[in-house]
Amino acid sequence: MICTLGVEIPIHMNKINTSDRRQFLRRSTTLSVAMAGLPLLGCMAAGPQANKDSIYLVGPQDGFSPHVGSLLSMMTMMRHWIVEGVKDLSVEELDYQIDDNSNSIGAMLYHLVATERLYQINTFEGIPWGEWDEEINRKWQIPMGLGEEARKEIKGHDIEFYLKKLIEVREATIKGFSERDDDWLMESVSFFDNQPTNNYCKWFHVCEHESNHNGQIKFIKKRINL
Amino acid sequence: MICTLGVEIPIHMNKINTSDRRQFLRRSTTLSVAMAGLPLLGCMAAGPQANKDSIYLVGPQDGFSPHVGSLLSMMTMMRHWIVEGVKDLSVEELDYQIDDNSNSIGAMLYHLVATERLYQINTFEGIPWGEWDEEINRKWQIPMGLGEEARKEIKGHDIEFYLKKLIEVREATIKGFSERDDDWLMESVSFFDNQPTNNYCKWFHVCEHESNHNGQIKFIKKRINL
Repeated sequence: MICTLGVEIPIHMNKINTSDRRQFLRRSTTLSVAMAGLPLLGCMAAGPQANKDSIYLVGPQDGFSPHVGSLLSMMTMMRHWIVEGVKDLSVEELDYQIDDNSNSIGAMLYHLVATERLYQINTFEGIPWGEWDEEINRKWQIPMGLGEEARKEIKGHDIEFYLKKLIEVREATIKGFSERDDDWLMESVSFFDNQPTNNYCKWFHVCEHESNHNGQIKFIKKRINL
Repeated sequence: MICTLGVEIPIHMNKINTSDRRQFLRRSTTLSVAMAGLPLLGCMAAGPQANKDSIYLVGPQDGFSPHVGSLLSMMTMMRHWIVEGVKDLSVEELDYQIDDNSNSIGAMLYHLVATERLYQINTFEGIPWGEWDEEINRKWQIPMGLGEEARKEIKGHDIEFYLKKLIEVREATIKGFSERDDDWLMESVSFFDNQPTNNYCKWFHVCEHESNHNGQIKFIKKRINL
């Protein structure tokens, strides 16, 4: 079991039966609200709170440096909107492709997980982009790369599969944020367009990148024709 | 003429000839970089600078309250990516629809302008959403609403038409931001989902909303088949 916000999530969520699935979906709605309303610091009984009164109060959060907390509050709001849009999709809907070259919604959700994980490795562990171990590469290259390989490999999973991964990776981000401060957020290296790029920018990108794919997810959802 | 960053932009840009158009496109590239690198405070010779060293240094900016400046730096980076993706599109590409129900890229660009203008009215002028004058409504309802009406009405414009509107509305946003502070940014009213929503959240939404449409713009661009 993975303990998150006091809600126990079965590890093999993609194998649970329909009744359990419905129960999980109810939980996941609660979870998505909870994800939006609270930080997910594993099983910690008490921890810093993000947007405790409303997910729509962007700004500094208790337990985080001012700009780190503000960034987290944006990521929380954004993630809530992503989850709300996909939480009721079936496996077939998650696998649906508009055309031979389009990514499925499921693959895009996995891609969001991969993106967040790789930015953790890059900014928390200080490993230059792409210079991580082969094991990391093997684990993430398909969801990160999307395209043909992802179309072949990422399919047949239900929404819990993706939500669980999104929750897990976000927990690690929140833990990482709670251990770092605004000085770290402003640290920069050459990155986008070979220009100085700070950690605030990289993580803002992780956030707006979710919205970028949310635009595509909404576009595809309206056209699912199964 | 509209004076922006010392670059004079012809008002009737959609009527300029091809040579001028090429010249404008070169200017608009410079402009998009400049938009990303500097605030557009009309013809002010000196003003607060946003991301003066790199558009990828998100964070507080000279001349703005800390969180207002950080938000502006995100909006600047986001706008740069939008402009870079569309600045070379032809009228036909801007008008292209993937299917009968899709919005054109041009209509989406106009929609971004409308969104930004209406959030200015809402948050700078304190007018509750939708309660503005009929004149405001008439001016913005079609680009704001997109859909069938926008498909009929928003077409035949070249990229300068949209870029000019994007620049103008952003200038007003930057001016408004420079005149307000972080206390204003944290002011909240009931808004999204009838929950307390502060100005930081509303303007973060204006920003991520550009990314949402950028995802759709990129999706459509890859499929333009004229």
